[in-house]
Amino acid sequence: MVATDDLHAPKGEAPAFDLSAYLSERQGFVEAALDSSLPVTYPTQIYEAMRYSLLAGGKRLRPILCLATCELAGGTVEMAMPTACALEMIHTMSLIHDDLPAMDNDDYRRGKLTNHKVYGEDIAILAGDGLLAYAFEFIASQSDNVPAPRLLQVISRLGKAVGAAGLVGGQVVDLESEGKPDIQEETLNFIHTHKTGALLEACVVCGAILAGAESEDLQRLSRYAQNIGLAFQIVDDILDITATQEELGKTAGKDLQAQKATYPSLWGIEESASRAKQLVKAAKDELAPFGKKAEPLIAIADFITTRTH
Amino acid sequence: MVATDDLHAPKGEAPAFDLSAYLSERQGFVEAALDSSLPVTYPTQIYEAMRYSLLAGGKRLRPILCLATCELAGGTVEMAMPTACALEMIHTMSLIHDDLPAMDNDDYRRGKLTNHKVYGEDIAILAGDGLLAYAFEFIASQSDNVPAPRLLQVISRLGKAVGAAGLVGGQVVDLESEGKPDIQEETLNFIHTHKTGALLEACVVCGAILAGAESEDLQRLSRYAQNIGLAFQIVDDILDITATQEELGKTAGKDLQAQKATYPSLWGIEESASRAKQLVKAAKDELAPFGKKAEPLIAIADFITTRTH
Repeated sequence: MVATDDLHAPKGEAPAFDLSAYLSERQGFVEAALDSSLPVTYPTQIYEAMRYSLLAGGKRLRPILCLATCELAGGTVEMAMPTACALEMIHTMSLIHDDLPAMDNDDYRRGKLTNHKVYGEDIAILAGDGLLAYAFEFIASQSDNVPAPRLLQVISRLGKAVGAAGLVGGQVVDLESEGKPDIQEETLNFIHTHKTGALLEACVVCGAILAGAESEDLQRLSRYAQNIGLAFQIVDDILDITATQEELGKTAGKDLQAQKATYPSLWGIEESASRAKQLVKAAKDELAPFGKKAEPLIAIADFITTRTH
Repeated sequence: MVATDDLHAPKGEAPAFDLSAYLSERQGFVEAALDSSLPVTYPTQIYEAMRYSLLAGGKRLRPILCLATCELAGGTVEMAMPTACALEMIHTMSLIHDDLPAMDNDDYRRGKLTNHKVYGEDIAILAGDGLLAYAFEFIASQSDNVPAPRLLQVISRLGKAVGAAGLVGGQVVDLESEGKPDIQEETLNFIHTHKTGALLEACVVCGAILAGAESEDLQRLSRYAQNIGLAFQIVDDILDITATQEELGKTAGKDLQAQKATYPSLWGIEESASRAKQLVKAAKDELAPFGKKAEPLIAIADFITTRTH
């Protein structure tokens, strides 16, 4: 058997990177860490509501990106895990609040009832607040073997990524743009670089900060993240049109229904797909100086344009 | 004139501490710092919404307590100001979210329309989220001359004080207790030590952490804060019954209307007032070892039981 393998892989050439195995291993680490991050205590209802959404599945791409860039920059999974969990807590908070009746008014998320449909609006608002506050507490109190100034940098970046200068600001412009299917490309870009891009960038950059990466490397990783973030959104917009509700695990055709401007509505589906590919290529080009160590990040970038849900 | 003053103040005895002058000076510092902490930029609506509630007045007792304990423990106002501002951002976030229709459904706060009445529910939810995230970013990025490990301790304490183990948890039990005017004293204590007490305690303790206070001093200050926190709440409950809407700047008699259990409903007004006084005395006793340096904290404790709004 070994001899046969050798025939297929020329001497010195490594076998192709197995992204699926990598992601499922990392997802396992993250699920276990998230599960133990938040034990249920009195008052149980709020902890259950927080856990309901935090442990509702999902690809865990954000924490996995954080772990990956920490390793890329010479750190360990252990150093980055509290920050990785915090990133998922923040992402979850944003989903819970986005789904509220006063916002996007969604009944389903990842194929399950949304938080407020199960626990009520009041608890859903508080569960989001609780997750956001806990994310910062978790980084500050649970990180091991990371110098304190790096943790402060991470907290500062994360706060900015989720606040009015990031996710919250993007959501505000998104709300303002509803019912205006003819908004400018500039506005659409602002929405997505803030609503989804800022947190993705924080995931990628914070992992590397934890490992003590230099400014030049942080900038490369930041551009990688911006490119895959936008590509991810374009593919999301395309899937909203082409995929079924079952595949998405959420209401399909929602954007069209809400009269939201999307990249396909701006450029058409074919041109959108082509631009997403260009962005992924640009993202991968940024990683060239890291060589083989960047394999997981390169595979994740490729994964974005080939995913179907 | 000098001679007359000397007659009244025996040699070596300082004039009585002027709390009113102290509070108004500190309030000025805090207002200026809050005002410059949050400049308006695109998308302007969210920054205006955040500023609307952050700069809506109030006594600024929380930040003032933080500055006071930092000075008590040998630090400076400058060291504590970013944390003091963050505490007011967090307090403001909790008020904005508490006032939402899905929660307490209040139209007025400090005599002004509540955030969601002016900006809509969606923006009010996001303004709260933005303030909460910004609070942590602000401490991590704006604090000068404080060792990084102390800032991490402060962030960890604050996260805990506002999350499910603190303010959010207290609010959940408060919501569960609505329409149940016969709840136990234990539950009422849980609500208040978490809903208002946890953040007050964080204010007092974090100021001292920033200055590098020892564990024993932190514990004294923590007990001081717990005592004045509970006294503050008892007085609040009494004022809700005895003061007019004009004096309170918010709807009076709200607790009775909502069939909420309060300390006066449990103990009667007279007994409640007497217990508040005992708590203030216990709070002041904790400060004895600090001598004259504790004057502002002692005066603030006394102020709580004598305030009328």
